[in-house]
Amino acid sequence: MATGDVLVDFRSDTVTRPTAAMRAVMAKADVGDDVYGDDPNVNDLQDKVAALMGKEAALFVTSGTQSNLCAMLAHCQRGQEILTGENYHVFIDEAGGASVLGGIMMAPMPTDETGALNGDDIDRTVKPDDPHCPISSLLCLENTVSGNVQSVDVIDALALRGKAHGLAVHLDGARLMNAAVKLDVPVRDIVKHADSVSLCLSKGLGAPVGSVLAGSREVISRAYRVRKLVGGGLRQAGLLAAAGLYALDHHVDRLADDHANALRLAEQLATIPQISVNVDAVQTNMVFMTMAHDAAASLPAYLQNKGILINGHPSRIRLVTHLDVSAEKIDQFVTELRGFFA
Amino acid sequence: MATGDVLVDFRSDTVTRPTAAMRAVMAKADVGDDVYGDDPNVNDLQDKVAALMGKEAALFVTSGTQSNLCAMLAHCQRGQEILTGENYHVFIDEAGGASVLGGIMMAPMPTDETGALNGDDIDRTVKPDDPHCPISSLLCLENTVSGNVQSVDVIDALALRGKAHGLAVHLDGARLMNAAVKLDVPVRDIVKHADSVSLCLSKGLGAPVGSVLAGSREVISRAYRVRKLVGGGLRQAGLLAAAGLYALDHHVDRLADDHANALRLAEQLATIPQISVNVDAVQTNMVFMTMAHDAAASLPAYLQNKGILINGHPSRIRLVTHLDVSAEKIDQFVTELRGFFA
Amino acid sequence: MATGDVLVDFRSDTVTRPTAAMRAVMAKADVGDDVYGDDPNVNDLQDKVAALMGKEAALFVTSGTQSNLCAMLAHCQRGQEILTGENYHVFIDEAGGASVLGGIMMAPMPTDETGALNGDDIDRTVKPDDPHCPISSLLCLENTVSGNVQSVDVIDALALRGKAHGLAVHLDGARLMNAAVKLDVPVRDIVKHADSVSLCLSKGLGAPVGSVLAGSREVISRAYRVRKLVGGGLRQAGLLAAAGLYALDHHVDRLADDHANALRLAEQLATIPQISVNVDAVQTNMVFMTMAHDAAASLPAYLQNKGILINGHPSRIRLVTHLDVSAEKIDQFVTELRGFFA
Amino acid sequence: MATGDVLVDFRSDTVTRPTAAMRAVMAKADVGDDVYGDDPNVNDLQDKVAALMGKEAALFVTSGTQSNLCAMLAHCQRGQEILTGENYHVFIDEAGGASVLGGIMMAPMPTDETGALNGDDIDRTVKPDDPHCPISSLLCLENTVSGNVQSVDVIDALALRGKAHGLAVHLDGARLMNAAVKLDVPVRDIVKHADSVSLCLSKGLGAPVGSVLAGSREVISRAYRVRKLVGGGLRQAGLLAAAGLYALDHHVDRLADDHANALRLAEQLATIPQISVNVDAVQTNMVFMTMAHDAAASLPAYLQNKGILINGHPSRIRLVTHLDVSAEKIDQFVTELRGFFA
Repeated sequence: MATGDVLVDFRSDTVTRPTAAMRAVMAKADVGDDVYGDDPNVNDLQDKVAALMGKEAALFVTSGTQSNLCAMLAHCQRGQEILTGENYHVFIDEAGGASVLGGIMMAPMPTDETGALNGDDIDRTVKPDDPHCPISSLLCLENTVSGNVQSVDVIDALALRGKAHGLAVHLDGARLMNAAVKLDVPVRDIVKHADSVSLCLSKGLGAPVGSVLAGSREVISRAYRVRKLVGGGLRQAGLLAAAGLYALDHHVDRLADDHANALRLAEQLATIPQISVNVDAVQTNMVFMTMAHDAAASLPAYLQNKGILINGHPSRIRLVTHLDVSAEKIDQFVTELRGFFA
Repeated sequence: MATGDVLVDFRSDTVTRPTAAMRAVMAKADVGDDVYGDDPNVNDLQDKVAALMGKEAALFVTSGTQSNLCAMLAHCQRGQEILTGENYHVFIDEAGGASVLGGIMMAPMPTDETGALNGDDIDRTVKPDDPHCPISSLLCLENTVSGNVQSVDVIDALALRGKAHGLAVHLDGARLMNAAVKLDVPVRDIVKHADSVSLCLSKGLGAPVGSVLAGSREVISRAYRVRKLVGGGLRQAGLLAAAGLYALDHHVDRLADDHANALRLAEQLATIPQISVNVDAVQTNMVFMTMAHDAAASLPAYLQNKGILINGHPSRIRLVTHLDVSAEKIDQFVTELRGFFA
Repeated sequence: MATGDVLVDFRSDTVTRPTAAMRAVMAKADVGDDVYGDDPNVNDLQDKVAALMGKEAALFVTSGTQSNLCAMLAHCQRGQEILTGENYHVFIDEAGGASVLGGIMMAPMPTDETGALNGDDIDRTVKPDDPHCPISSLLCLENTVSGNVQSVDVIDALALRGKAHGLAVHLDGARLMNAAVKLDVPVRDIVKHADSVSLCLSKGLGAPVGSVLAGSREVISRAYRVRKLVGGGLRQAGLLAAAGLYALDHHVDRLADDHANALRLAEQLATIPQISVNVDAVQTNMVFMTMAHDAAASLPAYLQNKGILINGHPSRIRLVTHLDVSAEKIDQFVTELRGFFA
Repeated sequence: MATGDVLVDFRSDTVTRPTAAMRAVMAKADVGDDVYGDDPNVNDLQDKVAALMGKEAALFVTSGTQSNLCAMLAHCQRGQEILTGENYHVFIDEAGGASVLGGIMMAPMPTDETGALNGDDIDRTVKPDDPHCPISSLLCLENTVSGNVQSVDVIDALALRGKAHGLAVHLDGARLMNAAVKLDVPVRDIVKHADSVSLCLSKGLGAPVGSVLAGSREVISRAYRVRKLVGGGLRQAGLLAAAGLYALDHHVDRLADDHANALRLAEQLATIPQISVNVDAVQTNMVFMTMAHDAAASLPAYLQNKGILINGHPSRIRLVTHLDVSAEKIDQFVTELRGFFA
């Protein structure tokens, strides 16, 4: 579908396009060869994110998947084990990279309806010092989890439970700024017990490309080697980093608008009889609507004809609000939905 | 603890020592260099197990773990995925070998109280053809599962469910002969839909060392390369293979004695008030007894002083009957247990 | 060193900064989410490179290392082997990614002074079908090799020698356009026997970031999965792809200027008594100058004070010409060199 | 070929069959479950080899390949590098296990005609601390190398050269006892700078199966985990360990007979005009004879009809003397050879 024909795209907050202001910043960004450490915008971005997160160092990478992969391989040697949520991104959406490329065992644990792990499961899942078992080494948390905010208390408790077993803690913070805005706390407060944390610039923050991994100098130094291994070292990456810096300066507070829009969307969906939606569960920028299988099967193509993009799913469709989704477009979408069911 | 001081060892059926008759066979076994394919007993054993299982070929390896590892790496390339039970041996007791050494993702699924997987879980767990996911390639079943027999119907249904998704099927049959004896069916009937099956000679069958993997010529040919990779190629292995042949000829039918002894053990344990045991759940050679944590903590050392070996566990202790456990020794053990609780 | 203070940078052709014209194109580039396949410039770039190379498909990745890694893991499964040159980039400059991440064995072979492999070495190095050996599967060629052009005949002969053994052939064409310009042949003629070929946009071609891998639809489909595994999937990558398209349209023919400048540089260096340089060996954009160890040790810092950047080396220093190196700057550099030795 | 029809087998010293005396020891060997640490003969063998080697601990494994694999994975994490000889067993005869299973890069170096590495090559091959490179971590030496003894001075110098770069040192001592007997020094003197050393029981020492890895408690503890991973944990392994203990007690000094027989063989071969052999190069139990390709092609089958087994090779055939090769059989072999060429 040609870009010009798209009215609104609810598939993900990854689809945002750089704004004119962001493009202007990129167009005049100073650059250097980052493999030589010469790119000023990359260096600034890394310093800024490290400071934001309260960590010693940071590393610019090309995606959230690469950020998590660098972290997991930096924390874990071959034969070690990562404990994480059975529906967390590192377990279900990253092609098994830690196991496939790193020789790391993954131990998935259930999560509750808020997306949280259970501390007792951590106790049960950590392996004894026994050659029959991999060596449990890392706990991977996530925030937000499918739009659900994990509170500071929850993250703290889980991280400390992991640390009590000697685990390092990584937090997949692809959408961590959504959590920080919703909780109205400095982001560093959320990650104070994390040994590393990843943050995506290309989701709600609206930069075109990139993620940043923050952690101790030691962890980032090892992650830097992993980034090289996977061919993630870039040259004049400052153009992308400049967009990231702009996003951190201008697109964080406005995430509250996305959250308000998601709520507005959920409330309107709730008025459509053929759709089931839990309005109370909407915390940030994601809404899940459930409908009959046959409706779910034909809806994406129907909407695409109207210039509205959604992901397909057998029954439970995720809608994501972002920079390019306005209240007006939400209203247009809901009108089309009513037409579909009529 | 010196061998001579052990009255009875309930820790596992792996602890059996070769009988005098088995030793006599081993002592005069003809041997050759199996890396050159020259060992007659290894060749005979492989042929015999292939025929028993109704498969084209078989491979002698040193352990059940190596048998499963060779199968998993033969079936799956880097980046592929194995579906298996969350409490199956390949997931919890093999140090994560498939992931650690083979770059294979493991997808654990819940099992019910009979040890069986649920077919619908297979449908849910198989990944779509999507680069975000590993490529689902193998279903690992197990029989027996912690002493529970999986019926032919259950195994057939699960295997066919996997095959409907294009999965190969491996069956971890470390104790498959216990299942066959209990079900009173030829073992080949149980594994007819399995593309590979492993069988341990050193558990209930009483051989000192070894396991055999059976499957198609193609699968065994790939497993043969994996065995070489892990240094599992042996030289004059015929001494061990001769013991395995003897075990298959003389120690299969007698597994019924182990099953009867396990039931006898369970029934007697049920008469001790401080112990909880599900007599009806005893199907083969394993009994699980539950007791208070403090009792469970002190019991192993108490019994060891009496020459009785059990594994420790916080509350649920597994007892295994085998070749070296007689009805009389069971009675002695129960007497000691009564003394402990008195 | 602040960008503004750099007069000329001979460290690599990777250090080129986007020109004003390239920046203008980037600034107005249409973009989409490439993970959804929506980015028009990425799609155009991939189509253009596929056509240039005479291959069915192509894949945009972030670096030459990632391009080669995707190719190697697409061609080779775990336990297979890559034959390549002992001084080729995939063996010495990519952190061993194929072995480290992919479980692939590397078999390095000597190269001659032109950078070429020897066909007889391929015959000798390919492994027999024997479980003691990995399975030889891929031959990795390179062009240019440290600035040396490999002729069409040489590449053809080596590729066909590999194919006679059943090997797939990958060509690391990070600087393939330099070879094509020097040979004055269409690039597709050089790679006609290659099953995959990588091309860097961020070296002599002057784009800020990116490399493209071309090959059959089947190979690119597998490489696409590897790119996802390593977190190389980008979102609005069209900004970078637009720069790549511009580079292919405007920066290929001008590589001849870099070659002329390299020759000019070599000829001038040859007039400095303390420097040894093989002028006849200069074929494209690289010059190697040799000097006494103590001179080599102090030269980089001396020049940096003058705004001239070179890489350090115990005695043999590589100088690379590119978009940002003019004849005038070469003359200034040589003047500074004379001053250093005076 | 049925065992009874074999007159003499020169293919390898791995083909030795246990003697009657060794079988008698095995037949009455006390055993236990070694996975529980209960096998007295395994424990004794491990202690004995540790003491012999002057190391803290040792581990019984099933093969030389497994011994080396456990050592390499114990010493090196994913992303690290092993320096070794380009014709050493770990590089050419173990299917690339360190790379394939362990994510370790292999850096082969040339060896001279005595099988020795060159210390300067070590200096050149060790990688700088640079993310473009794997982390050089282990130097793998070998003794004997294709029958060539490496002197204590040579091993010491190479090991210390490696240690000067911070490398750990492993010595593949599959036939180390042949070297010790030839050098007439205690074996521990040869390996004093090695952090780990493997010794095969099933080559010249004549045990049916097994190898032992010795090293520090820390290294052996990590190797123990690797052994479990590859399924190398055995149950009643004492039968094999008893043979190994017997071999160490009775079959070490007699290696001098094999060496004398090899020399006798070489001297006789030197009298056959169609055969080229370097008598002076025979140091231990291997002789290499060279002949015309057509003769080499037909010789193995010709001899097999006479009950004599040799390995095929295009021109350079290795003959190995061992326990089952007597001076008389050598004479018979030479007579048959003369017949072949007549």
